[in-house]
Amino acid sequence: MEKKQLLYEGRAKQVYATNDPELLIAAYKDSRGTAAVPGRGAVNNRVSVCLMQMLEREGVPTHFVEQLSDRETVIRRAHMVPLKIVVRNVAAGSLCPRIGLPEGTRLHAAILEYYYRSASLGDPMINRYHAFELELCTPEELAVIDRYAFRINDILKPFLRGLGVDLIDFKLEFGRLSDGTIVLADEITPDTCRLWDAETGEKLDRDRFRRDPGGAKDVSEAILHRMTGGNFM
Amino acid sequence: MEKKQLLYEGRAKQVYATNDPELLIAAYKDSRGTAAVPGRGAVNNRVSVCLMQMLEREGVPTHFVEQLSDRETVIRRAHMVPLKIVVRNVAAGSLCPRIGLPEGTRLHAAILEYYYRSASLGDPMINRYHAFELELCTPEELAVIDRYAFRINDILKPFLRGLGVDLIDFKLEFGRLSDGTIVLADEITPDTCRLWDAETGEKLDRDRFRRDPGGAKDVSEAILHRMTGGNFM
Ligand SMILES: Nc1ncnc2c1ncn2[C@@H]1O[C@H](COP(=O)(O)OP(=O)(O)O)[C@@H](O)[C@H]1O
Ligand SMILES: Nc1ncnc2c1ncn2[C@@H]1O[C@H](COP(=O)(O)OP(=O)(O)O)[C@@H](O)[C@H]1O
Ligand SMILES: [Mg+2]
Ligand SMILES: [Mg+2]
Repeated sequence: MEKKQLLYEGRAKQVYATNDPELLIAAYKDSRGTAAVPGRGAVNNRVSVCLMQMLEREGVPTHFVEQLSDRETVIRRAHMVPLKIVVRNVAAGSLCPRIGLPEGTRLHAAILEYYYRSASLGDPMINRYHAFELELCTPEELAVIDRYAFRINDILKPFLRGLGVDLIDFKLEFGRLSDGTIVLADEITPDTCRLWDAETGEKLDRDRFRRDPGGAKDVSEAILHRMTGGNFM
Repeated sequence: MEKKQLLYEGRAKQVYATNDPELLIAAYKDSRGTAAVPGRGAVNNRVSVCLMQMLEREGVPTHFVEQLSDRETVIRRAHMVPLKIVVRNVAAGSLCPRIGLPEGTRLHAAILEYYYRSASLGDPMINRYHAFELELCTPEELAVIDRYAFRINDILKPFLRGLGVDLIDFKLEFGRLSDGTIVLADEITPDTCRLWDAETGEKLDRDRFRRDPGGAKDVSEAILHRMTGGNFM
């Protein structure tokens, strides 16, 4: 596996080409558009690897191939569907002012939302008809994405609950492999999930990071420790 | 048919009880939260009656019973579903900044949107999961509403096109009769549709009204004249 040129750099990751046109290397950064927190990239890399491996075992196809180093992972190259798929179990964030629910309201059933990944439009919430008009994906692809999103929630929620963590909501991104297969791509990390302590309700995730950047790595490491029983790189 | 007490008054209509608990009288106002335009209520009443009669003939159940006077119509009492259902054929209004389309872009297929009727929340756009969480309607009811909304578009669009009018978008409201049947309720008028002249693109509707309140009645009457061939009350 030869690491070649940098293809793109986002807020959280750098993505490199490799000698295999179907494979890329994702390198997690310690910063996320904010001040760097030493070790954050490594923790996020390890959490995403753990969760994607678990999802693969449960039958959800992902872009994960193999972890290369503390902060680098080999992933399948995908043509990204420019949607942020948000799954919610408890009202928090933008949902509260939108539909008038107090933060912390447990939802009767999981809520799925689509946001169009467009920096110039500010990642607006859209619906399926908007997605088809913009040709972001086909109806068949969206049906698969919906199914995987709910399935991932059904896997992650009880798993995290067993670790004393309440999965409030999370963001997913999907892509198409060269043969058109839809796979879970990007990352699942404490930076893309809202995680609250199941007992105390304490915010263990990015909400905490926004308030207390220095504490973020510790919190992620604690989650990772709970997840892996300490057996991580 | 005895007209009893005023039950509620909105921006466009007063709704009265009658001696029949299943029937109401809608009385259209000349104002719509703005300065009154003499005759506007009568024109809107007549347009809505004409269109609902046409939809009934085409198999879409509506709340329409009979026209009582120039501005009054007997309607079936419905328990309203608190959703504004918007159907769009051409990009205009809030769709343009949301998904980045220039006004006037003809859509590949009709776009359906749900807005939660909530003055305190500002009628936010929501999706089906939000609607179910808030118990605004059941999945079965929403499936019927979707089907009727597209069907109404498929009836109105060619009808108006035959009158030289382009149906850009429109807003519908549905309700449940006492037996649970979903019917089209509220109104379909030039105040709840965007209508552009099919040849010149001139705005014939509420957009024009916003710019030129005095011209609005004339425009509605012109549409009504085109619709009824002049045979209206
Ligand atoms: N399997 C994949 N194939 C190709 N691109 C991917 C894959 N997984 C994630 N990406 C993309 O990598 C880029 C960098 O990720 P990130 O730093 O999270 O970006 P952003 O700041 O836009 O969230 C994003 O554009 C993301 O969509
Ligand atoms: N068939 C019906 N049964 C009961 N209420 C109805 C029916 N059709 C319309 N309404 C309601 O009548 C009220 C008055 O209408 P309108 O003036 O258009 O109100 P608004 O200003 O809220 O748009 C609205 O709350 C509307 O939902
Ligand atoms: Mg990202
Ligand atoms: Mg109204």
